[in-house]
Amino acid sequence: MSDTSATAYARLKDRFARIATLNEAAAMLGWDASAMMPPGGGAARGEQLAVLAGVSHAMLVAPEVAGDLAAAGAEGAWGEANLALMRRAHRRATALPADLVEATARANSACEKVWREARPRSDFAAVRPWLEEVVALQRETAAALAGATGLSPYDALMDTYQPGILAADVEPVFAAYEAFLAEALPRAEEVQASRPAPVEPQGPFPVEVQRALGRRLSERAGLDYDHARLDESAHPFCGGTPTDVRITTRYTPEAFGQAMLGILHETGHALYERGLPEAYARQPVGEAAGMAAHESQSLIIEMQASRSDAFLSWLGPELHAAFGGDPAAYAGANLGRLWRRVGRGFIRVEADEITYPAHVILRFRLERALIAGDLRVAELPGAWGEGLQGLLGIIPPDDARGCLQDIHWHDGAFGYFPSYTLGAMAAAQLMQAARIAVPGLDEALGRGDFAPLVGWLRVSIHERGSLLGFQELMTSATGRPLDPSAFMEHLRARYLT
Amino acid sequence: MSDTSATAYARLKDRFARIATLNEAAAMLGWDASAMMPPGGGAARGEQLAVLAGVSHAMLVAPEVAGDLAAAGAEGAWGEANLALMRRAHRRATALPADLVEATARANSACEKVWREARPRSDFAAVRPWLEEVVALQRETAAALAGATGLSPYDALMDTYQPGILAADVEPVFAAYEAFLAEALPRAEEVQASRPAPVEPQGPFPVEVQRALGRRLSERAGLDYDHARLDESAHPFCGGTPTDVRITTRYTPEAFGQAMLGILHETGHALYERGLPEAYARQPVGEAAGMAAHESQSLIIEMQASRSDAFLSWLGPELHAAFGGDPAAYAGANLGRLWRRVGRGFIRVEADEITYPAHVILRFRLERALIAGDLRVAELPGAWGEGLQGLLGIIPPDDARGCLQDIHWHDGAFGYFPSYTLGAMAAAQLMQAARIAVPGLDEALGRGDFAPLVGWLRVSIHERGSLLGFQELMTSATGRPLDPSAFMEHLRARYLT
Repeated sequence: MSDTSATAYARLKDRFARIATLNEAAAMLGWDASAMMPPGGGAARGEQLAVLAGVSHAMLVAPEVAGDLAAAGAEGAWGEANLALMRRAHRRATALPADLVEATARANSACEKVWREARPRSDFAAVRPWLEEVVALQRETAAALAGATGLSPYDALMDTYQPGILAADVEPVFAAYEAFLAEALPRAEEVQASRPAPVEPQGPFPVEVQRALGRRLSERAGLDYDHARLDESAHPFCGGTPTDVRITTRYTPEAFGQAMLGILHETGHALYERGLPEAYARQPVGEAAGMAAHESQSLIIEMQASRSDAFLSWLGPELHAAFGGDPAAYAGANLGRLWRRVGRGFIRVEADEITYPAHVILRFRLERALIAGDLRVAELPGAWGEGLQGLLGIIPPDDARGCLQDIHWHDGAFGYFPSYTLGAMAAAQLMQAARIAVPGLDEALGRGDFAPLVGWLRVSIHERGSLLGFQELMTSATGRPLDPSAFMEHLRARYLT
Repeated sequence: MSDTSATAYARLKDRFARIATLNEAAAMLGWDASAMMPPGGGAARGEQLAVLAGVSHAMLVAPEVAGDLAAAGAEGAWGEANLALMRRAHRRATALPADLVEATARANSACEKVWREARPRSDFAAVRPWLEEVVALQRETAAALAGATGLSPYDALMDTYQPGILAADVEPVFAAYEAFLAEALPRAEEVQASRPAPVEPQGPFPVEVQRALGRRLSERAGLDYDHARLDESAHPFCGGTPTDVRITTRYTPEAFGQAMLGILHETGHALYERGLPEAYARQPVGEAAGMAAHESQSLIIEMQASRSDAFLSWLGPELHAAFGGDPAAYAGANLGRLWRRVGRGFIRVEADEITYPAHVILRFRLERALIAGDLRVAELPGAWGEGLQGLLGIIPPDDARGCLQDIHWHDGAFGYFPSYTLGAMAAAQLMQAARIAVPGLDEALGRGDFAPLVGWLRVSIHERGSLLGFQELMTSATGRPLDPSAFMEHLRARYLT
């Protein structure tokens, strides 16, 4: 390693640390906007985030960066991966002209605003022209990124959210799942119908009690509140930074399941952030390995561990102690019947584990066609109904329950949706591997103890940061790249027997 | 106005708006650090604030700014004042070498950390070397600023917090007050002793009830919660931004007075921020007119209005309705005796209206001597005791109740203290003028109605931003520059009769 190349790399590390620190500031302000900010603060907050994004982008594309990247050399696997990720970030940032970035930010923000008002009225016509503009700019962005990366336009967008996964990787996985679904869903419905109906716990369930229990459950899952907060927001999420994660949920005194499982879901995200390698904090290689990887960590906690028979048998008495009422409603088996109910619905975020991928497959196909120019925005409602009918045999009665239900496209996020299902599949595959690697994992969950599972995730996933690509990470953790069979096995065992 | 000069000014306005927007982001993160952040987030937050400060400083001292400032011309009083304030900010920022700024930030932060641990132990010896370093760097800073501004070194520091006020303005005011105090304090103690002892309201005073009442009181004072939040922090403050102000207080179920009056104090600050001229948002001329001006706005609400006989007669029944118990404790006259008690104490923040200026005068003299090099840090405890004895006739039993009690010096804030008393004096002078200008002001306060007072403050102070210097602002609002007579009259009427 020459002196010059080491110096150039050191300068880059310093620059990327400053960029990451500004992005941390933006992440905190984003959390505040959702969890704390009074409504009148919105306009100023938008400006603050825009200026931060502008400064951080300018640091990334500054003239001296290209020279440093050309000259820099880094030692060891971590250093090499870090430098490669710096080059990737620079290549993507310089591929997009500033006026396209600005026009995109403006169009996304305008469309999202119109969408927020139009969705309750199911008014697709109002959204259409704005979404057309968003799609047009996304197509431009995709083309520019494709030119810089050698990927296809849609792949270049997907690459934004989950580097290393192409549509060609997703297609066969989704096709296999579609075939599985056609057989599994009717069978799961039959099995469910043959079982006793679940007993509904009777409320009210005081919000204060839910808040305290939610915090306790996330602590059991491993979240350390010296470095975390739990608050409320309209749309639950995990934000903040690795040493200061902020998770949110939504409470209603009429029910507790969604809030408690939602907290466990966000806790999974939070544990990933908390477990990222400290030695590479604020460096690209120290970040999470993409959105599918992130979703695998929330879903392994929420879906795999927290909805397991073992954990529910521990959780039932805890819930009963907190809320009182009929003990039968809190038996582990009853909770399983309550929280693993299968049904064909219109709304993605309310879907069960079996039908959720159908919602994602639909969106993957439609957004790919939109980006390719094979589908026009005006045709979206029709294509949506047709697609959902093919997958689940139902057609939404209106666009509010159809193509207007998600924020993603209306905010310019194309290529994101596959991450949800890739994450669900990865979670099942990781759980399968963890059960082999960690003896007594389910027995521990039966004592409300997540430590064996989370300890394995920490070493196998969290501490790796972005050292490995997604497929390499899966291979290193489970012995093979992502394949959907573990997920299908999991669903068979949970729903079809 | 030539095209070039208008263009240069437009560029500067844009630059200063971006700087102000980054400062807004920092203000929000500062609020979060005090009101929300888990302890483990501290290290990362420090970095975030440091990088933001660095970026914002770099924007201010960028090479092209000097040329624009030289070329720029602005029209009208607001434009001219804005440009003058830009030149002032640039002159001050470029006067300080970057390594001095960095060394100062590091020394302040290190000293403050040591101080936090040493204060409870009253361990001045532990703090001394760190404070010596802070003072040495402040002396360097003062010299550099003096060179760039033509002010004396201490004046150049004061100018940081309250532009337009010199030590030579403060000296005669403080001397007059010292003379007044020597006669007024014993007299106030006599008057107080001759009156019935106040009846203490009996608790507990549930925090939830205090929170709701505090919010209601601040709303009555004019705070609009579409643009504000009320939270808790160890040290109450007003932070945030003009369209999103964040005030905090501290509750204890044993008492409510401090929390309620504290909320009203911070509300005064918040109303000032909310009332700043929107047309000059994010421009230097759109900012508050300095810390003495700011303190005048909190104290006119807390001390002048909220502790007035008229308001207390309205507040008593409200408090009684909220907390119950003996109605005699909530009679307006009793609240007056409770919340206007006079006494000689060691702690500035616990001091009454009459003795508070003595604490400030002491600090003003000591910090001036430290900056001049006439007093060494090692001599501080002795000089403190001597000074307090001269002013109030008492000597602190230890340094925790002496020179270690305030954060200011230990965090590098020299020249700030006078603002407290200048603000108290300005508040009395403004109240005197408001009573003349607004008929029925006290009758309105007797109905719990702050609108006439706040409406006058809005036009006379808030909406002026930094268009006028402090003395010009006082003259425009009250017909004369700051003079301590209104404050002394106020104290005579409230405490000596």
